[in-house]
Amino acid sequence: VVKPDLDLIAAKLEGLEETIIAKLIDRAQFKVNQNIYQEGASGFDGAEGCSLFFMRLRRQEEMDALFGRFRVPEERPFTKELPSPKRGVSLGESCLSIKDFDYVSVTSRILPAYMDLVRDLCSKGDDGQYGSSVEHDVYALQAISRRIHFGALYVAECKYRANSEKIDALVARQKEKELLELLTRPEVEKNILERIVKKVDRMQAESNPRTRKIIKPEIIYKFYQDTVIPLTKKGEILYLLYRKVDSR
Amino acid sequence: VVKPDLDLIAAKLEGLEETIIAKLIDRAQFKVNQNIYQEGASGFDGAEGCSLFFMRLRRQEEMDALFGRFRVPEERPFTKELPSPKRGVSLGESCLSIKDFDYVSVTSRILPAYMDLVRDLCSKGDDGQYGSSVEHDVYALQAISRRIHFGALYVAECKYRANSEKIDALVARQKEKELLELLTRPEVEKNILERIVKKVDRMQAESNPRTRKIIKPEIIYKFYQDTVIPLTKKGEILYLLYRKVDSR
Repeated sequence: VVKPDLDLIAAKLEGLEETIIAKLIDRAQFKVNQNIYQEGASGFDGAEGCSLFFMRLRRQEEMDALFGRFRVPEERPFTKELPSPKRGVSLGESCLSIKDFDYVSVTSRILPAYMDLVRDLCSKGDDGQYGSSVEHDVYALQAISRRIHFGALYVAECKYRANSEKIDALVARQKEKELLELLTRPEVEKNILERIVKKVDRMQAESNPRTRKIIKPEIIYKFYQDTVIPLTKKGEILYLLYRKVDSR
Repeated sequence: VVKPDLDLIAAKLEGLEETIIAKLIDRAQFKVNQNIYQEGASGFDGAEGCSLFFMRLRRQEEMDALFGRFRVPEERPFTKELPSPKRGVSLGESCLSIKDFDYVSVTSRILPAYMDLVRDLCSKGDDGQYGSSVEHDVYALQAISRRIHFGALYVAECKYRANSEKIDALVARQKEKELLELLTRPEVEKNILERIVKKVDRMQAESNPRTRKIIKPEIIYKFYQDTVIPLTKKGEILYLLYRKVDSR
């Protein structure tokens, strides 16, 4: 089994911040367009029961599944019963010890939090740009999900290796609250949040507010604070609870 | 017929710059991965003759076609014979006068220029991240294509309205070189290029080079100078040559 490298993992998590911010800025160029989230209003032939947003998410994940996206540990899908890949995906050796990566999936919790985020992020109203809005929703969700699950899996594995006896004891007694405490590093979280604010500002510093909607750093700060960081830790706990006994 | 608003058009073109830059930075997080462009090496069941990149582009455009993307004037596809939309797309009244938007398509010229760009933009070598690389290639290409065709269509219509007699005369005699001269505004191009350099720097100002590949502004400058701007003007000329005679 390969040894996880905490520096590399932290670097990857940090690098994904720009990706998430850029995709949220892209989505914010369109209005909320509430119609796209309305079930039964997709206007899509043969998909009368669902929303245009869900239809796009589903089609995207079906295509991505064919290309093998969900073989990658941190790529957890939002929808179920996806087709098998049509190509082989070589992943290299992994340091992770878990039977099914979907044990760690928190996508069902990301979705409602993202819906709240859209309402804060985008201008109110309807600009008719439904196709572009759902497209950017899906890309933003994928970037957020990748960040959360990558953190959940690899950070948890690192922490386990550094503290396996204590964690084994807490897992054996299903002490989720104590696990959460053990996984929380307030100074690291504070650094992330401060960095996010700076990045959101800097990435838009040359943007012209007349030609481009500027998003407020506080919105992304809040989303990281209330969703990204807590769901990463939730995923870490799931990982530790389901971590394979035979590999301990 | 609606009157085109040059200020709004310029604003939209300027706003698309951040989108293009962000998507190119995302692609640059992966190596060149030359294998993905190799025909016959897709490793994709039932697509043995083509590259993984082409396969992804094709599948993406098929999905996008179902959602109606190519009903939008500036969204020109890279592949042909795509399925019809499965939803109605309401576009509002247009100021454009052309029978088929594909008369203005320069996607076949964007593709080889983008391939050269990837080699300058990304680190040499192979990191095995094929799925992510082709995904980001496709998103970057779509953003570039949108910018070029939006400019070609709407800027040309504006310029036509401001100078229709002269343009009619040049079009009647198929004077492409003189049309190109008439369409060229060096001071506007200079402004765009200077703005691009600033944006590329600013958008990465908070990025940590240890965790995120930083791209050089000169590469995007050169791509705008040698590809985006010339192909926009090429598209403008095509628009003027094919502009509907009956609407003059």
